[in-house]
Amino acid sequence: MIVVLRKDATEEQVNHLVEKIQKLGLTPHISKGTERTIIGVIGPEDILQITPLEIFPGVEKVMPVLSPYKLVSREMRDKDTVIDVGKGVLIGGSRIAVMAGPCAVEGLDMLMEIGREVKKAGARILRGGAFKPRTSPYSFQGIGEEGLKYLAQAARELDMVTVSEVMDTRDVALVAKYVDILQIGARNMQNFNLLKEVGNTKKPVLLKRGLSSTVKELLMSAEYILAGGNFNVMLCERGIRTFEDATRNTLDISAIPVIKQLSHLPVIVDPSHAAGKWGLVPALSKAAVAAGTDGLIIEVHTRPEEAVSDGPQSLKPATFGSLMNELQPLARAIGREI
Amino acid sequence: MIVVLRKDATEEQVNHLVEKIQKLGLTPHISKGTERTIIGVIGPEDILQITPLEIFPGVEKVMPVLSPYKLVSREMRDKDTVIDVGKGVLIGGSRIAVMAGPCAVEGLDMLMEIGREVKKAGARILRGGAFKPRTSPYSFQGIGEEGLKYLAQAARELDMVTVSEVMDTRDVALVAKYVDILQIGARNMQNFNLLKEVGNTKKPVLLKRGLSSTVKELLMSAEYILAGGNFNVMLCERGIRTFEDATRNTLDISAIPVIKQLSHLPVIVDPSHAAGKWGLVPALSKAAVAAGTDGLIIEVHTRPEEAVSDGPQSLKPATFGSLMNELQPLARAIGREI
Amino acid sequence: MIVVLRKDATEEQVNHLVEKIQKLGLTPHISKGTERTIIGVIGPEDILQITPLEIFPGVEKVMPVLSPYKLVSREMRDKDTVIDVGKGVLIGGSRIAVMAGPCAVEGLDMLMEIGREVKKAGARILRGGAFKPRTSPYSFQGIGEEGLKYLAQAARELDMVTVSEVMDTRDVALVAKYVDILQIGARNMQNFNLLKEVGNTKKPVLLKRGLSSTVKELLMSAEYILAGGNFNVMLCERGIRTFEDATRNTLDISAIPVIKQLSHLPVIVDPSHAAGKWGLVPALSKAAVAAGTDGLIIEVHTRPEEAVSDGPQSLKPATFGSLMNELQPLARAIGREI
Amino acid sequence: MIVVLRKDATEEQVNHLVEKIQKLGLTPHISKGTERTIIGVIGPEDILQITPLEIFPGVEKVMPVLSPYKLVSREMRDKDTVIDVGKGVLIGGSRIAVMAGPCAVEGLDMLMEIGREVKKAGARILRGGAFKPRTSPYSFQGIGEEGLKYLAQAARELDMVTVSEVMDTRDVALVAKYVDILQIGARNMQNFNLLKEVGNTKKPVLLKRGLSSTVKELLMSAEYILAGGNFNVMLCERGIRTFEDATRNTLDISAIPVIKQLSHLPVIVDPSHAAGKWGLVPALSKAAVAAGTDGLIIEVHTRPEEAVSDGPQSLKPATFGSLMNELQPLARAIGREI
Repeated sequence: MIVVLRKDATEEQVNHLVEKIQKLGLTPHISKGTERTIIGVIGPEDILQITPLEIFPGVEKVMPVLSPYKLVSREMRDKDTVIDVGKGVLIGGSRIAVMAGPCAVEGLDMLMEIGREVKKAGARILRGGAFKPRTSPYSFQGIGEEGLKYLAQAARELDMVTVSEVMDTRDVALVAKYVDILQIGARNMQNFNLLKEVGNTKKPVLLKRGLSSTVKELLMSAEYILAGGNFNVMLCERGIRTFEDATRNTLDISAIPVIKQLSHLPVIVDPSHAAGKWGLVPALSKAAVAAGTDGLIIEVHTRPEEAVSDGPQSLKPATFGSLMNELQPLARAIGREI
Repeated sequence: MIVVLRKDATEEQVNHLVEKIQKLGLTPHISKGTERTIIGVIGPEDILQITPLEIFPGVEKVMPVLSPYKLVSREMRDKDTVIDVGKGVLIGGSRIAVMAGPCAVEGLDMLMEIGREVKKAGARILRGGAFKPRTSPYSFQGIGEEGLKYLAQAARELDMVTVSEVMDTRDVALVAKYVDILQIGARNMQNFNLLKEVGNTKKPVLLKRGLSSTVKELLMSAEYILAGGNFNVMLCERGIRTFEDATRNTLDISAIPVIKQLSHLPVIVDPSHAAGKWGLVPALSKAAVAAGTDGLIIEVHTRPEEAVSDGPQSLKPATFGSLMNELQPLARAIGREI
Repeated sequence: MIVVLRKDATEEQVNHLVEKIQKLGLTPHISKGTERTIIGVIGPEDILQITPLEIFPGVEKVMPVLSPYKLVSREMRDKDTVIDVGKGVLIGGSRIAVMAGPCAVEGLDMLMEIGREVKKAGARILRGGAFKPRTSPYSFQGIGEEGLKYLAQAARELDMVTVSEVMDTRDVALVAKYVDILQIGARNMQNFNLLKEVGNTKKPVLLKRGLSSTVKELLMSAEYILAGGNFNVMLCERGIRTFEDATRNTLDISAIPVIKQLSHLPVIVDPSHAAGKWGLVPALSKAAVAAGTDGLIIEVHTRPEEAVSDGPQSLKPATFGSLMNELQPLARAIGREI
Repeated sequence: MIVVLRKDATEEQVNHLVEKIQKLGLTPHISKGTERTIIGVIGPEDILQITPLEIFPGVEKVMPVLSPYKLVSREMRDKDTVIDVGKGVLIGGSRIAVMAGPCAVEGLDMLMEIGREVKKAGARILRGGAFKPRTSPYSFQGIGEEGLKYLAQAARELDMVTVSEVMDTRDVALVAKYVDILQIGARNMQNFNLLKEVGNTKKPVLLKRGLSSTVKELLMSAEYILAGGNFNVMLCERGIRTFEDATRNTLDISAIPVIKQLSHLPVIVDPSHAAGKWGLVPALSKAAVAAGTDGLIIEVHTRPEEAVSDGPQSLKPATFGSLMNELQPLARAIGREI
């Protein structure tokens, strides 16, 4: 941590600060320049985080040097993490994982129908929400445990892996019983108690980035899960909130290489929620593959005009199939498979 | 809801849409212009929300006409809501309510000391976190139930009302047992299950706006609580996330008059979290009072340099006292008291 | 344009509005619903834009139906615009155009050296700033006309096309004399007089998106140039400003398909300014190609550590060469060349 | 400037960097910690700004210590700048300056009528645009020099000071000939050549903050004007662009105290453009006064429903008069006049 002193900081203020730093068991390095004095304090920043040096008299600002995340960082683990989500499906390796399915599980028949279609097109992971976070209390809220059962049955019959959202600390065990990958939604990215709960399971977790969260905050939320002992975390970029209104959110494509530099965890991209319009999903999917994503999660519905939620952003199976065909040569072009 | 058709929409496509709308039990009004045909569908938009008309062939866009919130809206209730939070303290009336105290409850002595100071300066409501949402799993997470007990004791001894955050659906009953006002933090504004839980209590709720939530979304989250039967909701503006980095967040001062136009619920402003720096708190507090806020929630600490969290944004009691003195004539200038 | 009336709008207010609309020579279509009355006014919205209907008593809001841009829109011209920038280089066709070179022209030798390198790697267009918009008055401001002369000479000797920024209405003729493509920088996207000036030339224009401009505003700025009679406009996505600070700006990759849907003009992506860090440029370039960009503009410098501006985001020639090699199979995978 | 080295930086890389710093004529201070080595380089950061240390091998990041602005900074001048704009009107002193008038000058009669009204209500400065920056080339663009003449005539007859926008380097002398205060619009805040031109005059300048500019960037743009020798600069907060859509822009009320801390220049607030709706202007004006603004610039129109531009955000004279009456006690409450 670097402490920059004000131009008018007195000798006494500097000494007071130096004493304080020493009391914390750290060694201050003072550098006096022509315009400013700065004090370098290099050591465990955890200690410093609990002592707000910026409010000491004479201090202009305090700049952290170290990143606050540890377990998720590239420095902790040089090799990319590869997560085994079951049935031979690995996430984070050379094969790009595709998760597809309806926004919400509406019924078994519909789920089976969509599942068959997306599997035929090449998806190995079936998505579908049983608990739905909706901005309006009057919107469809999901069919709950029934939906989880349908997912489990579809997974069995179609030999697929499943992913579904858990929204409540009280439901973690229930969802974990039925599905293979626990999804933490964007709105719960900083629901810290929920992160701790999924950290206590050993289930793979798909952690979605919050609508206005930085990549660093996404990594900090992942850190909660890893700190609980669960290292099977995938980070999902799903668009951030900006002033642009041609799309529902703005897909932050740079997040892919940024996360790859900072962390060893796999990255998944959700083009459906980022765009909010199915017509943009193919272009965003291709961009994500080219930029190095480890996976895609795409909404597919056989009758989007009757979907109980997110119809406008769902691909029909035929369009999804064409997209998968177009992604093949792109993946090969960067030395991967899909 | 208005459906705008594409320039090249066919007669057949228009008819298909009209039929669909009629099947939903609604009456379409077609207007053919020189450049576009539009269809007005005025009726309960709830029905329309579950049918994504924008994906029908020939449709360019769909524009909602009605706001999705009902119970919180000014149309539902013309008169301002005034909430009785106990001990004679009303929120939403002519007297501006002041909530003050430490970010986190660290111990009983410290809480009593700060409580005495803020009460002396004019605050009737004591704030203090027992459960703390922290971005890092390695930061201080609050002292839990013990902190709630201290709050209850301080409230009793100082004759003050208390407010404290609840972060987990499992803790609602516990927090409600000890404190007078349940706070939902910014990061949980769209934790819909938590909203439902506090909606099931009758406790007054202080609902903080999410870091990147629109005012409309804040109202929708409040709608969840009212829909559960709890009408004692205060809406808290605490800064939104923008590109500006001179402050921790950007206080959206316009939210005060905007909420007052759209809703009957009281508005509280949190200048401490918005600014992130104590030196800006006085100016923001004054602005909020002048703009019509019904209350302020301000962090105060006797020894901010030793605070376990948010020290840099805490006022010392003396500064808080001066601020309260400066707010008096401002409140009177707009015909209110503080 | 749709006029939504307030719930409490009186008959008199509605009549007043209807008369006003008729006086403007337009036909109002009234639809009375159970909760709201709306008036559809379909006609030239230009007329309506000068009459602010939203301030008439009884009006809740006014929603435009038509887009405000005409000449740039896909409706005006179904076929993609292909721009001939000289020396056989076309922009907007099947071949993806690559513009590369230093941020600023520092001298002739350096420009020739970089030019030779980027040409060898496959770039046909040489970029370099002679006039530099810098946030600090104390930063290097470009070498002006001298730099333009070097660009012209390099173009001649290397058989390349050139692009350089023009910042001042007074310099348009000067810059147009020396370079092949006039660049309008992000900070000047809404310098409307400058847009008019370049609209009066017939030179191809590379119009960069403003840091906080929507795609619609970018199209409106292009409309200024086309309205002046110059249809040779390329739209450049170069990152928008968001709260994310891991990158200098956030590349809005969705802008590529969005612009392709709304307009017939070619799209160029600038990964260097979007990222602000050279290490991210390859991933963003690949994403842009996969998402359908018609061109890339990339900063390359032989000695970035000595560059007078934007060194941290410049690729060295070897890295640029490798990137070009990696882009080849990607372009082929989507049926294009580079 | 602080250089933070990577964990894996080699001795050789550190030495290479140290040499480079020494060659620049600066003294490096090396601090070796357990987790990182950092090098403090305290000296004129201008030198460092032209040498991108972040691209040297082994460097993780570079953090500037000093602010890049000089002349505008509080450190340069402790006392608040007070600008004499003529006719006894001072800006920056204890009296809060009020600028009011129509968005655009439409004709002399209308300007005189509005001028008389706003003067009667207490405004001493008349605003009105002769050159209008409009997002659409098809919108009204202002009446040019004719409008400037009307402003000059109105100023003479009403004994008022005038402010009007200049958009083009070629028009600076013309506008300066007729009006008292030159306005640089938000879209031109980083039109650096225009800043230089107004810096060469001695006219007071009202510099508006760009829609997505930070306070620091606003100060840097002001620095351009002061560096040219013109110290008569007022900084105008007029709302920034965020995701919130209930208002046209988000008034950054914190900018007032932030600018006051960082700079000695006066601050003016434009509630009309920030809100985009006249109904919000009173609350925002009051907030601005309470937060310490030195002036307000407000749009007033006698017949907003016929205004050629910005009608929805213009106050009628009666509302403006009431607002001025309400601002009086607020100003007194903070020890100022209006």
